[in-house]
Amino acid sequence: MTRQELFELIKKKKSFLCVGLDTDISKIPPHLHDYNDPVYEFNKDIIDATIDLAIAYKPNLAFYESRGIAGWNTLEKTIRYLHQYKKDVFTIADAKRGDIGNTSKLYAQTFLSDAPTGLDFDAVTVAPYMGSDSVKPFLGYNNKFVILLGLTSNEGTNDFQMLDFIDNKSQNKLYEVVLKKSQAWGSPDNMMYVVGATKASMLKDIRKIVPEHFLLIPGIGAQGGDLREVCVNGMNSKCGLIVNASRSIIFASKGKDYEQAARQEAINLQKEMENQLGQFKLL
Amino acid sequence: MTRQELFELIKKKKSFLCVGLDTDISKIPPHLHDYNDPVYEFNKDIIDATIDLAIAYKPNLAFYESRGIAGWNTLEKTIRYLHQYKKDVFTIADAKRGDIGNTSKLYAQTFLSDAPTGLDFDAVTVAPYMGSDSVKPFLGYNNKFVILLGLTSNEGTNDFQMLDFIDNKSQNKLYEVVLKKSQAWGSPDNMMYVVGATKASMLKDIRKIVPEHFLLIPGIGAQGGDLREVCVNGMNSKCGLIVNASRSIIFASKGKDYEQAARQEAINLQKEMENQLGQFKLL
Repeated sequence: MTRQELFELIKKKKSFLCVGLDTDISKIPPHLHDYNDPVYEFNKDIIDATIDLAIAYKPNLAFYESRGIAGWNTLEKTIRYLHQYKKDVFTIADAKRGDIGNTSKLYAQTFLSDAPTGLDFDAVTVAPYMGSDSVKPFLGYNNKFVILLGLTSNEGTNDFQMLDFIDNKSQNKLYEVVLKKSQAWGSPDNMMYVVGATKASMLKDIRKIVPEHFLLIPGIGAQGGDLREVCVNGMNSKCGLIVNASRSIIFASKGKDYEQAARQEAINLQKEMENQLGQFKLL
Repeated sequence: MTRQELFELIKKKKSFLCVGLDTDISKIPPHLHDYNDPVYEFNKDIIDATIDLAIAYKPNLAFYESRGIAGWNTLEKTIRYLHQYKKDVFTIADAKRGDIGNTSKLYAQTFLSDAPTGLDFDAVTVAPYMGSDSVKPFLGYNNKFVILLGLTSNEGTNDFQMLDFIDNKSQNKLYEVVLKKSQAWGSPDNMMYVVGATKASMLKDIRKIVPEHFLLIPGIGAQGGDLREVCVNGMNSKCGLIVNASRSIIFASKGKDYEQAARQEAINLQKEMENQLGQFKLL
């Protein structure tokens, strides 16, 4: 999917909601365990219940890998299920990979390639610590995106990302250096950034560094964060925001009404997103 | 395996060699493709050919993930095969994972747990960018290790790891800050660091920061690097070094003599390691 197509999708659905498929098998409704693949059944139900409200779905790899082959199988089936909506959803593998060039090339193939062994996601999250050659192999796929970790939303953010750097005699925080340097590796048409919503006030400054790039904003819902503030500080002329909610949607109810509950949570967020898109005259 | 047991293993085998099982299916000898799982056959053969010479084996996850379910299956069979040598090898999942606390917990389970769905490696490589809560969940396993990325051996090292930081009014490079801060999260008994051998001259300074920790040194062999220089600058009273070679051993020959060729490469490295251990009076 191109950046323009993503923007068209946002306008069509009046939403920039991403549903995080962080499907913890121990938290899904008990009756689903009667199925052969309970997590897949749950994912399908969540997707069906929110497909008109969400523009993106983002399985976090840890929830699948931790179940070994069975989990990897669930992931493959889930992305295949999403592919039936090919032009209607943007798919993100939240994998946070990164290795030396040759090895990153294989991770890129895994998540982005449309060859038989590739999962054919539209985007994959990548960790920046190892630098340019660890990121560039992910940029070689047409109309696909690297979503590079910039400023994350967890407490550990302060350990390294927020440290002050001396770079070309000017002073920057590490995450600002990451945003600045990495722009030379790609463009807004093949890169996005993860920016934690718990620091929404910092979005204004981040937008000065990356005015055009889409930002993936975690931290709405279970991790806290304020949607309106995110929009005021982060929205650009093509929306430029993908806001993720995971647990607050998928585990809105632990009972048999999980689909309706997830849908209701997604509606609440979509309505506010429609409101914000309207205020920014993007609809 | 404890740190002391690892040191005893090093003395017994007179080696601190780790064989990187970066098994690229396109590079293994053609006749192995007659088997149901060619990569597993190759890994078994390489392990059998080097088991008396190597103290550790390190599959890099990208080479397995990139083959989807089939690759994950190969990985599970390979680690199970290594478990028959349980006290005689140290196993490392080179996964470079890292996510917010709750999610890292699942990655830790995946690679370190001895429960049925865990792979029960002795150690896993972890990326530091997301900070303390992304690393700590990996530290909660008895006699297992986090191997945190410190200074890597690729060209992208210069992008962030080598930048100068202002931290508590003193100036440090990012990788030095990572080494210093992360020491508070664990101890030499549950943490190690990746330190790229292409910067062996910097090992001397790194040893001042982390005198006791084991260091995993990639970059011997295909990536260049000088074993003697690594030892002079990096060895401590419990050896403190695990030196990895991947392609230079496993793909020493592309023909049917791949086992003998791998063994010969491993012998060459082991002999030099025995020599160095002797010089440091550790044997």
